[in-house]
Amino acid sequence: MDNKRPLILISNDDGFNYNGIQSLIKVARTIGDVFVVAPAVHQSGMSSAITFVKPVITTRIVDEPGYTVYLATGTPADCVKLALSQLMADHMPDLVLAGINHGYNNGLNTLYSGTMACVFEGILHGVPSVAFSFGDYGPNADTSVCEPVVKHITERVLQSGLPKDVCLNVNIPKMNGPFNGMKVTIGDMGRWINEWEHRVHPTGRDYYWLTGDFEMADNGRGITDYYWLEQGYVTVTPTHVDQTDYASMQQIADLLL
Amino acid sequence: MDNKRPLILISNDDGFNYNGIQSLIKVARTIGDVFVVAPAVHQSGMSSAITFVKPVITTRIVDEPGYTVYLATGTPADCVKLALSQLMADHMPDLVLAGINHGYNNGLNTLYSGTMACVFEGILHGVPSVAFSFGDYGPNADTSVCEPVVKHITERVLQSGLPKDVCLNVNIPKMNGPFNGMKVTIGDMGRWINEWEHRVHPTGRDYYWLTGDFEMADNGRGITDYYWLEQGYVTVTPTHVDQTDYASMQQIADLLL
Repeated sequence: MDNKRPLILISNDDGFNYNGIQSLIKVARTIGDVFVVAPAVHQSGMSSAITFVKPVITTRIVDEPGYTVYLATGTPADCVKLALSQLMADHMPDLVLAGINHGYNNGLNTLYSGTMACVFEGILHGVPSVAFSFGDYGPNADTSVCEPVVKHITERVLQSGLPKDVCLNVNIPKMNGPFNGMKVTIGDMGRWINEWEHRVHPTGRDYYWLTGDFEMADNGRGITDYYWLEQGYVTVTPTHVDQTDYASMQQIADLLL
Repeated sequence: MDNKRPLILISNDDGFNYNGIQSLIKVARTIGDVFVVAPAVHQSGMSSAITFVKPVITTRIVDEPGYTVYLATGTPADCVKLALSQLMADHMPDLVLAGINHGYNNGLNTLYSGTMACVFEGILHGVPSVAFSFGDYGPNADTSVCEPVVKHITERVLQSGLPKDVCLNVNIPKMNGPFNGMKVTIGDMGRWINEWEHRVHPTGRDYYWLTGDFEMADNGRGITDYYWLEQGYVTVTPTHVDQTDYASMQQIADLLL
């Protein structure tokens, strides 16, 4: 790192008025200059959704030396795309941080996560990127307990960078005492069961609430994020965008061609 | 395949009143029984977004022997989750088909695609799944030219199955003459540039339209879907959900632990 302060872009999916993003901003401002582009409306479960049938409108609500905040009407992916392609195009950040999400984005939940969408956009634009999520789903979750983890990882990544096209998915357990440690894990590709609760509207129409129970794929092997979070460890899962299944290409060619 | 007719679940992101899904239904009904759960409202670019801050409401609009259609107020992922966990739970389908999308879902666009979300849910529920997308973005695209491709792939997959946890992402070029052939490809992880068009609202506020140009990563190697679609080939990209970057786990452990 040279002696100028690093520039850090921050976004999330919960929106600006959440403890999680405020914790991230607090830590990041002790390390560098901070530029925030956050969704104007809560955007949980939005995955990498993008907005193109209507425009995205921005409002700058903070403009201080070393600290800027925009709200945008779009999704988490829109916010980071807009930051890196327009709002910060003349001065690209050294790092993208996302979160701290109120609730885990571990394992299969990566697929549905707006927080992960932020860091996918970060690496797609060539910027090292780290997502943080906390095991307390409450709107008033006390995310201050995550701050030392954020500081440690942020400093290390600013110092050493990350492999090309790889972002970090960091999940932090809610503990009564201190964390038991930190593990580099794989994302648990288990499955959701009991996914919906069926109810009947007063008018007789069927409706469904998305809910569910997760069945881990770890099976006691001690290799996935779900497993280690239950053991009280902070988990770090290196994650990339590409979903091509290289291993089956010949088999599919044999089947179809 | 035993002698009972296969059961095929169909969904998409454009909604039920589009030529693409109607082509898919037409072909599938020549092969088996068909169960459709489609979004009630157009859901392009929704990625794997899920609905959980409000309920999902369903309406059954067709209920004939061998042909059922539901509309659901949620996202493409919601539609397939709801079909496989609730509406079809007593009689699981042999296959999930998604599309035919009006517009490609090739390469990096997989990340943003509601069509791909349908087939991700399919394989997450253990059902072989194939997504079809066509290189005509118009709402009135003539998708009938895709029907022989759909028939070929659907029959082969019903006959032989697919590798566990792998779905197919099929893209079909818009041609003046016949296709040049079919290729099994990797998804082109190039990059979008010029992603936004900045305008100013009459009141003075900034707004942005998502747009852009795609720069291929293929570089003339002839291995990606983008490359072969430009050459007039149908492309089939085997695709999975897991995004863990196994290759960098030790490097990240060395960096952080």
